Amino acid sequence: MNFRIVGRLLAGFTLFFTLAMLAPLAMSLFEDVEQSTTVSFLASIGVGFAVAAALWALGRNSGDNIFRKEGLAMVGLAWFLAGVIAAVPFVCSDSIPSFVDAYFECISGLTTTGATVLGTANRDIDTLAPSMLLWRAMLQWMGGIGIVLVFIVLLPSVGVTGSRLLSSEQVGLSEETSRPRMSQQARRLFQLYLGLTVAATLSYWLAGLPLFEALCHSMTTLATGGFSNHNVSVGGYRNLAVECIAIVFMFVAGCNFLLILRTMLRRPGTSQESSLHGSEFRFYLWTTLGASLFVALTLWLWGEPMPDASLGTVHDYGDPLRCLRDGTFQVVSILTTTGYANANFQNWPAAATYTLFLCMLVGGCTGSTAGGFKILRAAICAKLGGYTLRHFVRPRSVEKLRVGADVLPDRVVSAVVGLLVLWFVTVAAGALVIGLDSRVDLVSAVAASTSMMGCVGPAFGEVVARGAEGFELVGSLDLGPYAGYGELHWWAKLTMAVQMVLGRLEILAPLAILTPRFWWR
Amino acid sequence: MNFRIVGRLLAGFTLFFTLAMLAPLAMSLFEDVEQSTTVSFLASIGVGFAVAAALWALGRNSGDNIFRKEGLAMVGLAWFLAGVIAAVPFVCSDSIPSFVDAYFECISGLTTTGATVLGTANRDIDTLAPSMLLWRAMLQWMGGIGIVLVFIVLLPSVGVTGSRLLSSEQVGLSEETSRPRMSQQARRLFQLYLGLTVAATLSYWLAGLPLFEALCHSMTTLATGGFSNHNVSVGGYRNLAVECIAIVFMFVAGCNFLLILRTMLRRPGTSQESSLHGSEFRFYLWTTLGASLFVALTLWLWGEPMPDASLGTVHDYGDPLRCLRDGTFQVVSILTTTGYANANFQNWPAAATYTLFLCMLVGGCTGSTAGGFKILRAAICAKLGGYTLRHFVRPRSVEKLRVGADVLPDRVVSAVVGLLVLWFVTVAAGALVIGLDSRVDLVSAVAASTSMMGCVGPAFGEVVARGAEGFELVGSLDLGPYAGYGELHWWAKLTMAVQMVLGRLEILAPLAILTPRFWWR
Repeated sequence: MNFRIVGRLLAGFTLFFTLAMLAPLAMSLFEDVEQSTTVSFLASIGVGFAVAAALWALGRNSGDNIFRKEGLAMVGLAWFLAGVIAAVPFVCSDSIPSFVDAYFECISGLTTTGATVLGTANRDIDTLAPSMLLWRAMLQWMGGIGIVLVFIVLLPSVGVTGSRLLSSEQVGLSEETSRPRMSQQARRLFQLYLGLTVAATLSYWLAGLPLFEALCHSMTTLATGGFSNHNVSVGGYRNLAVECIAIVFMFVAGCNFLLILRTMLRRPGTSQESSLHGSEFRFYLWTTLGASLFVALTLWLWGEPMPDASLGTVHDYGDPLRCLRDGTFQVVSILTTTGYANANFQNWPAAATYTLFLCMLVGGCTGSTAGGFKILRAAICAKLGGYTLRHFVRPRSVEKLRVGADVLPDRVVSAVVGLLVLWFVTVAAGALVIGLDSRVDLVSAVAASTSMMGCVGPAFGEVVARGAEGFELVGSLDLGPYAGYGELHWWAKLTMAVQMVLGRLEILAPLAILTPRFWWR
Repeated sequence: MNFRIVGRLLAGFTLFFTLAMLAPLAMSLFEDVEQSTTVSFLASIGVGFAVAAALWALGRNSGDNIFRKEGLAMVGLAWFLAGVIAAVPFVCSDSIPSFVDAYFECISGLTTTGATVLGTANRDIDTLAPSMLLWRAMLQWMGGIGIVLVFIVLLPSVGVTGSRLLSSEQVGLSEETSRPRMSQQARRLFQLYLGLTVAATLSYWLAGLPLFEALCHSMTTLATGGFSNHNVSVGGYRNLAVECIAIVFMFVAGCNFLLILRTMLRRPGTSQESSLHGSEFRFYLWTTLGASLFVALTLWLWGEPMPDASLGTVHDYGDPLRCLRDGTFQVVSILTTTGYANANFQNWPAAATYTLFLCMLVGGCTGSTAGGFKILRAAICAKLGGYTLRHFVRPRSVEKLRVGADVLPDRVVSAVVGLLVLWFVTVAAGALVIGLDSRVDLVSAVAASTSMMGCVGPAFGEVVARGAEGFELVGSLDLGPYAGYGELHWWAKLTMAVQMVLGRLEILAPLAILTPRFWWR
């Protein structure tokens, strides 16, 4: 392990990240002085420069060759480090006084999770200064493009390629691995992301949102992050056009970005990876349609009007169109791990909430900004199940395991199921820790852990009971879409912060840097 | 597929199964006539003979060679068929008037699940005639020895061995496959099972239970079934000795029976299988100890006295001994998939209930009467997770996947994870169907589905809310240890019956007979 190179890489990363704070700094100049946002951003820019300088001093005389381990160490550490620097303005401006809370919020932003501590045990989101709201949305936006570049460009360039994993890492550049091609690829991906963000901003604006809110929401939509400028999320606008725009852009952000790029450039890849990602897109499309219809159907069968206390409205689930609207919006929001809400889905019938839980587990496509276990891997696991059964019926058949037209090699399948096991273990262990808080019930603990690992954001629990005289709150913490994680203990928040980074980086890289063996030699 | 052979095999099975009804018939002669139990058993013996005769007529001229498919078809059909015949006396005597309910109860018995429809929407268990209680306990006892013989003796003898699966199927006779040896093996296993049952009966009796109750409970203990003669299960005796005896015999029944036999005969096997099952026992022991201590600890940290309405007692969880007693009893009961209760564990803190849920998923050892995914397979999956991580850290290492000292071949690992995927899919699909009932909440649906697939019995949900003035019931169906499944809709009950058989036969055999391809040629 060459620590100098890791230091130099992190120095560059920190510098770049610190410079991004100039945008909210500029904005803060036009705000009233009470919340002292300008001073806070100046302070955190100072901290950022100091950290960058220290890291640069460490890495001054390093060589030029980045190898696999250095790349992994850099990626594994970057998210944790960025969270610290990003938290400074929140703490200094007293927007989120506790450092642990601010760190949770920033990690939640950078991993595009969208879980918030605001609103519960902290001030309401609506009372934050605009510059803070911008910074919060920018964290998600940078986290979104960051993860795409890491998995499609950076990791493949240092040799973490997919012969083992068929993870999004593999999506990339098996045909084109030279450096100049790679920076071209990165530039194009960034342009695509920027273009989509501009398109989303304009659409939201035309649909009636103020420009600033349109910008913030488009950033968190494209990152599949889910931070909103309001406690009541996107549903609070009660605007069908806004919800439809959100559905479209969340769906696009959940697709493989390389696939989008290739389709736009009319240069379909010829490799096995490209064909696999075509299959993945089809699975993604059908999962979205199937789950949306199923949820809409259960809401319609349920049929009762459901009061939505936070929005002050009643959703009439006797109306099929309302069922379809809420069902589709929530399925796309959860499957792409965005986490916007237009209804308090934790009070939906069990079959609907449960479908959302399964969507949380699966997540979006590889090579997208979405989190979760990823559609392609879930499809491979499902195929393995069917294959095992067919092989049991005809033990001497010579059938191979296929996805679409592609035969999957054993080592790929083995790596995917290895990841599946690690995924379940981390979800289970996280739920156990969160469940140690006696105020949290069983569903909330499991849903919160799954939500963190999948970078979704909101969780759900049984917070309301259906009594004879309507709905009443019972004594459990509300971790649902209109509440937040503010009231949890600090150890639960830190555990969840680790889970978010584990989930975002697909477990292996952050877990690897925790093993002593990784640092030898 | 040779239908004649399947018919002949099933005819023999039905005849044997029908003859077992002579025991409750004899008992019914001494009962009062009102419940018409004698007539009911005579009727069902008639039905049994008729079915056996019809099947025998079908299979009259079949050859003598049983092959793989015929064996699988016979096993897959036997449980469903036995459920029908076993349900007759319950329906005729009006003990359980609805046929679907009676079928559910009998499948629950034969698969050693222990889920009951009695008590809720049906009469209380305590009001059943003794002959009916005996028949109910015998169903579990026969189901228990049945599954051991199927997986250790029958399936290996027809070529369903473990080169693919490392399932309990493989446990058996790789060294000794000749017919005479096999019948000797079967006889010894039966003697062991009988001996353990006698020992348990005597122990329960000495601990103060009436002889009849001691007999019934020992049958359902050794089968890890969990039917009790009382609504309030074993906890109702409030007898520490009884609970300790139950813990010991449940634990023994969750061990690999071949391993017990070999240890008793001082003939340790030399094959890889024997060494694997030694490792499995160690995992089993440590899981039991670890989970018991953890649950006891969470109960103690919780510390509040917990009223147990059904038992009319208060469990004082400030007392460490009470925590240890309840924790150990429930962990062993759920891990071995027995399902006895000495406390209403659905009201425990989330971390404790959640641990029980994980125990439900894992289950006991291969080649035991316990259900679930099985310790050995869970250990292999866990090892695969660790292996994937180590391989990620050092991609060029030549390390192999090991359990204990044994290297696992790729095809074994692949078959185990294939089964893991099928397991999760069936649990998830079952939960979705159960959750379609709008009275069932999310936890209840998932827990009930897991409980059925693992042949555990009780499930749990959030049936009580902790309000300011204590505990109060909120509006959800109680599927917990002191309630039952009686109030569910018929379609939910039939789904659960199928799930129990799927779980008991480890998915593949019953699922195989549902594929059209299986019946070709």
